[in-house]
Amino acid sequence: MSKVNMLAHRMATKAIQLVDASGNPVVGKEVEMKQTNHEFLFGCGIFDVIDVANKKVPADRLAFQEEKLDKFLDLFNAATLPFYWGMFEQEEGKPRTKELQTAAKWLKDRNISVKGHPLCWHTLTAPWLLDMTNEEILRAQFDRIKRDVTDFKGLIDTWDVINEVVIMPIFDKYDNGITRISQDLGRVGIIKEMFAKTRLYNPEATLLLNDFNTSINYEILIDGCLNAGISIDAIGIQSHQHQGYWGLEKLEEVLDRFSSFGLPIHFTENTLTSGHLMPAEIEDLNDYQIPEWPSTEEFEERQAKEVEEMYTVLFEHPLVEAVTTWSFSDDGAWLGAPAGFLRKDNSEKPSYQVLKKLIKEDWSTNHQGKTDEQGVVTLEGFLGDYELICEGEKVSFKLEGSGERVQLVL
Amino acid sequence: MSKVNMLAHRMATKAIQLVDASGNPVVGKEVEMKQTNHEFLFGCGIFDVIDVANKKVPADRLAFQEEKLDKFLDLFNAATLPFYWGMFEQEEGKPRTKELQTAAKWLKDRNISVKGHPLCWHTLTAPWLLDMTNEEILRAQFDRIKRDVTDFKGLIDTWDVINEVVIMPIFDKYDNGITRISQDLGRVGIIKEMFAKTRLYNPEATLLLNDFNTSINYEILIDGCLNAGISIDAIGIQSHQHQGYWGLEKLEEVLDRFSSFGLPIHFTENTLTSGHLMPAEIEDLNDYQIPEWPSTEEFEERQAKEVEEMYTVLFEHPLVEAVTTWSFSDDGAWLGAPAGFLRKDNSEKPSYQVLKKLIKEDWSTNHQGKTDEQGVVTLEGFLGDYELICEGEKVSFKLEGSGERVQLVL
Repeated sequence: MSKVNMLAHRMATKAIQLVDASGNPVVGKEVEMKQTNHEFLFGCGIFDVIDVANKKVPADRLAFQEEKLDKFLDLFNAATLPFYWGMFEQEEGKPRTKELQTAAKWLKDRNISVKGHPLCWHTLTAPWLLDMTNEEILRAQFDRIKRDVTDFKGLIDTWDVINEVVIMPIFDKYDNGITRISQDLGRVGIIKEMFAKTRLYNPEATLLLNDFNTSINYEILIDGCLNAGISIDAIGIQSHQHQGYWGLEKLEEVLDRFSSFGLPIHFTENTLTSGHLMPAEIEDLNDYQIPEWPSTEEFEERQAKEVEEMYTVLFEHPLVEAVTTWSFSDDGAWLGAPAGFLRKDNSEKPSYQVLKKLIKEDWSTNHQGKTDEQGVVTLEGFLGDYELICEGEKVSFKLEGSGERVQLVL
Repeated sequence: MSKVNMLAHRMATKAIQLVDASGNPVVGKEVEMKQTNHEFLFGCGIFDVIDVANKKVPADRLAFQEEKLDKFLDLFNAATLPFYWGMFEQEEGKPRTKELQTAAKWLKDRNISVKGHPLCWHTLTAPWLLDMTNEEILRAQFDRIKRDVTDFKGLIDTWDVINEVVIMPIFDKYDNGITRISQDLGRVGIIKEMFAKTRLYNPEATLLLNDFNTSINYEILIDGCLNAGISIDAIGIQSHQHQGYWGLEKLEEVLDRFSSFGLPIHFTENTLTSGHLMPAEIEDLNDYQIPEWPSTEEFEERQAKEVEEMYTVLFEHPLVEAVTTWSFSDDGAWLGAPAGFLRKDNSEKPSYQVLKKLIKEDWSTNHQGKTDEQGVVTLEGFLGDYELICEGEKVSFKLEGSGERVQLVL
């Protein structure tokens, strides 16, 4: 009972009226209503799609990669694709547009919502920016946004517009074009410019600010952006927990602080590993590179418990609209960490099964009923897409939080 | 030579033409030009003025307090007076307006520029705000600004509008009315409101944002405020160094970071003690209360060196326009620290003498010259007020960075 109440914001109760082609109520018939998708975005980074969709996977690896993607599709309804400038356009003027379009379309065809990550970031940015003046860098960045946001409109309508701005102007590990222009524009200034440009070329898109910094720094930055009139559609929060699970207390504290803006929150990059913890003294996660970081049975149990707890807290929170796990499989995972839901051989870890149970069973609706004299059957279910089956006929509909009754023509 | 260059922004070279009452040049006369005040604000907290100006000092202490103020007047040209709401208006509706006006006038009559500190702060705020709704607290805060800024216009035209906003909404040592409304408005929101109201009632005033937090938090907050269109006249930086002198490196690093906004910088609350250092593990300086915190000869020498170095760096920095030392004397100093330029018996510490030499000798101009055939004598000097003496006559003028030659009528 208390669990249902905690999820009330994820559900709706609605009268579904069935009529025939002539508009007459379909009376006294058995119906089955089965949820086929969630409104909530259960996402994952899935860069492997690019080679598969573009048929670039070596023959001896194809079955393996296809199996991996099947398991991805069994669980998730959202994907993040990489748009790191330095990789997307390694050579100036030769963007990997076609390849990424093919990947995005592959996902879209399979009912997966796609996010592009990121349009502006100081890491993995184009090295050739370093040969430009700051004015030229800014123009190149604007052109990049115009080109990519336009080229992917309809395929990708959610963007991490700008990434890690808290550290951007003081990032000093190596010189790069984006840090240079962020110093000129200031933090709020560069966010303002990048959001304005992205909005211009895809006004309906969902635009995120994204950061790994969950301290007061990020709060103050968001506060400044909102007061400066920047329209942020969702606050992106990274949660790479290679150094240990935040735990309930920190998770709730972070949610509490970032909820104060009243904006949707996306957990954009979640990592919970099934291996030993990265030492706490490592400041930049990228500095921890080891030859072998094994997934162990003991830690797989821990990961499953943490995944269950964390996803439950996030799904229960009214402002969270998306959770994206960063690495789907240990095969190719960031930093070589055992951060996936699959092991390197594609076998499912307990975390995969736990999450599948949550998404596909506990938080999914499968309802059987009988239409009344008005042809109405009442559905209380989780928000999302449904398939209604009656007398061998199949109709699709969407269960939304708002709106009147739904009328379906069989 | 290099020293002169470092101070070029504090100086001007100008032709001063002397004419007689009929407008004829005063030719070939010896003139003496003596600086009487600085454009730069050398300030100090000097709350003792209130009782002296209001004749409330016990008879047996009056000579002592007068001696203290004489030494203050010998050194400084700016003062900070306290407007802590909980002390200024301990009982609702009974503000200490008259007393503070008398004190501000006492200072103004002695050519001391006065700043009011602060109009909005969560510490030392009026306890009776706690009985109000948040809407009422905000209205009371607005009314307070309207009343005090209006009542002191002309006497006090510089205000620390709002103090320590970085910590304000998360301040949790005790409940208070200002933290409550800062949570409603957000950081940039409360700054925006308080600046707007202060500006409304004294459009020409110099308005400061002030904070002890010199981290990236404060940078991001200022960036947000500026992007939100808040017109901050000067960035206030507190530098209470009870736990040890920042040193050149940190001082220059802080100046560097806060210079990026191109705004004037005021060091609003400077403390360098002549005693042992407060332990580093103390987080809130207010938590360190000891019965006796002696000033020692050894540490007085250290303080003098630190004062000399710090004031020199600040005076050389083109964006710094004011330095205010928080405690003029150990007698009554904040936290009982030996933080003054005077010892408890009014005797001058080496720091007093060092600073006096800087302000009154090294950075002060006293020029003798002879008018030429046009009655002109050239003055290269530090910006500020001057007295010109020629043939027993005395004329006052201001040496400013901009503008044409100065014509004076003897």
